[in-house]
Amino acid sequence: MRDAYRDYSFLVYFHAMAKKDNSKQAIALHKKLGGKIRIVPTVPVRNRADLALVYTPGVAAVSSLVAKEPKLARIYTMKGRTVAVISDGSAVLGLGNIGALGALPVMEGKAALFKTFADVDAVPIVLDTQDADEIVETVIRIAPAFGGINLEDIAAPKCFDIERRIIERLDIPVMHDDQHGTAVVVLAGLINSMKVVNKELNKCWVTIAGVGAAGVATMRLLKKFAPKVRILAVDSKGIVWKGRTDLNATKQRLIDEQVIFAEGEGDLARALIEADIFLGVSQPNTLTADMIRKMNRDPIIFAMANPTPEIMPGEAKKGGARVIATGRSDFPNQINNSLAFPGIFRGALDNKVRRITDKHKMDAAKAIAALVKKPKADMIVPDMFDTRVAKAVAKVIR
Amino acid sequence: MRDAYRDYSFLVYFHAMAKKDNSKQAIALHKKLGGKIRIVPTVPVRNRADLALVYTPGVAAVSSLVAKEPKLARIYTMKGRTVAVISDGSAVLGLGNIGALGALPVMEGKAALFKTFADVDAVPIVLDTQDADEIVETVIRIAPAFGGINLEDIAAPKCFDIERRIIERLDIPVMHDDQHGTAVVVLAGLINSMKVVNKELNKCWVTIAGVGAAGVATMRLLKKFAPKVRILAVDSKGIVWKGRTDLNATKQRLIDEQVIFAEGEGDLARALIEADIFLGVSQPNTLTADMIRKMNRDPIIFAMANPTPEIMPGEAKKGGARVIATGRSDFPNQINNSLAFPGIFRGALDNKVRRITDKHKMDAAKAIAALVKKPKADMIVPDMFDTRVAKAVAKVIR
Repeated sequence: MRDAYRDYSFLVYFHAMAKKDNSKQAIALHKKLGGKIRIVPTVPVRNRADLALVYTPGVAAVSSLVAKEPKLARIYTMKGRTVAVISDGSAVLGLGNIGALGALPVMEGKAALFKTFADVDAVPIVLDTQDADEIVETVIRIAPAFGGINLEDIAAPKCFDIERRIIERLDIPVMHDDQHGTAVVVLAGLINSMKVVNKELNKCWVTIAGVGAAGVATMRLLKKFAPKVRILAVDSKGIVWKGRTDLNATKQRLIDEQVIFAEGEGDLARALIEADIFLGVSQPNTLTADMIRKMNRDPIIFAMANPTPEIMPGEAKKGGARVIATGRSDFPNQINNSLAFPGIFRGALDNKVRRITDKHKMDAAKAIAALVKKPKADMIVPDMFDTRVAKAVAKVIR
Repeated sequence: MRDAYRDYSFLVYFHAMAKKDNSKQAIALHKKLGGKIRIVPTVPVRNRADLALVYTPGVAAVSSLVAKEPKLARIYTMKGRTVAVISDGSAVLGLGNIGALGALPVMEGKAALFKTFADVDAVPIVLDTQDADEIVETVIRIAPAFGGINLEDIAAPKCFDIERRIIERLDIPVMHDDQHGTAVVVLAGLINSMKVVNKELNKCWVTIAGVGAAGVATMRLLKKFAPKVRILAVDSKGIVWKGRTDLNATKQRLIDEQVIFAEGEGDLARALIEADIFLGVSQPNTLTADMIRKMNRDPIIFAMANPTPEIMPGEAKKGGARVIATGRSDFPNQINNSLAFPGIFRGALDNKVRRITDKHKMDAAKAIAALVKKPKADMIVPDMFDTRVAKAVAKVIR
């Protein structure tokens, strides 16, 4: 892959210029690049002899073969190493519903990460529809060329239904990364946090702020991994509990399936009393040092709202937080999907895995956690540029 | 692009092994490659500073900008240099309806040609549907990331309707290459053939065997270019004329719009009496030397059925053919779409052309023809590896 790079000395210039707010530099860089991916042949077509093998007439034999034995497409075509990164642009980063074109730079970035971290070829596709039925149909119709589907930045709660329906209809792995990528990395971080504070997840009380894509998947994976954990879910209206009449189907299902503890009402502050762990996938600046003071001993704070966390690390520390993680690269313990998704799809492609199961996700979390030999308060997950990560994750997706 | 190539010395081996039938070698090569395209980043992501510009948080500024000003997507994203190559697999090469996966090796080959000949990034997409309405909807929904749509290997007659409907709904160029790529190169070849035999196209009688995608588009472009040309169309049942009751809507429209001369019945032999030009986009071995003997002086024979032409060049010569062209690379005068489509899309992307018009197609044909300084019987079109071709074509698509 590296041979595809030319001279990128200009990046030094952009880095030098970039301050905390690097918007201007990012815009200038994107203008210079004109898109972050390109499609190159794996083979040169320099003359008629090349052409006769790569294209007609030779290709006809390959087409006939693959048409007769569809399984062989994984060997003879791009399908065996390519995933589609698909978004409808309905929940892009913290920007919200900015539509297909607005989502495109993010999907291209994701494709760049796929290649960088796991040598997965990823094709960005952005959809000119936000209707759940149309999204499902469209993804299924364009699926044949791909060995996997990474759904991205699709709003909750429709994302749950969309993902489930596509999984049911395709025989390739399909994963909405905003849900499961986050869940896997959070679980990895929690596994190691437990070692730092010397607790057992099965005995912990967890309060999760945010019941969107990431929150719901995290709760479900956590409950699967540690069935006795007690989870309180808090949305913008307070604790999600059985007395509420304003719950959507997704939240109601969390109660019905006993994923969350839904016995009493209250706000976030109340939900945190005696809690061991705070997981924030919600809004900036919604957590205070005072709230942390009311938590159980050695509070674990994952404040993952982006780019501004639910509480800044310094402030969390004042409240007594023992382990602090954010989504940001400028603080220790960055909880970042990039630790999970490249290896998950790499493994799925390599091992011809048709579905990403909960076991895969838990195994991926354990594999990520295991790369930190001696977890410490400021080192609960490996660095996202640690080249061992994708390989370790890929190994367990089989 | 060249920097993306590694060591391809193994190709020499495949070339050495390849005989007339290179099926085995093509299959072995494809197995080795595991697909003919890969997706690489245009920029490295080596560290957090890179990441902050290419992905979050920097990318948010780019996404916001593009969401607000959709036109800017051509500058800041892949859209400005990427086309989709889309097929439903309903009419793949001479193999017929072999479906999506069977079509994939061909679409990948096409993507390789796009990059090789015109530095266009092309994404192969194969569809798990052959329903016209579903194809139209799907293509429209996945269009936002692309600056152009190359439809490929979609069966006639549905291809006409599908292309028209997609063109109407999108503001990017859409072209079914089996139709228009062929039409452009045939016209280029005819322009130069006229110089060889010293005739005027407007005074010629043309007989076209084959009323599928390529045949229909060729007739229409030819009639547009030389309104007084007389065209007889012949399908598997004989001359397409107004007395027939078995004509589909496409053929009927050719009569109603007076694209073809539809006054008398007969077979191909009859249709060729006194004709100046035979254009074959039909079946192997359907033309005989005897038929050519009944044509007007200096017969022009384009026998483009693939891989076996309507008549072999040696046989056509016996019948008195003056100019002979085929679709094959092992005879002179190869009529190959590759002379047209790469430059057409390159020009459309560069010059922000929203629709490929008939004028574009005629200008492209003229540009291709003009590259042959002194047309001769065995040199009516430039070599497809002539690097001037795509540039010359791109220049006139504006």
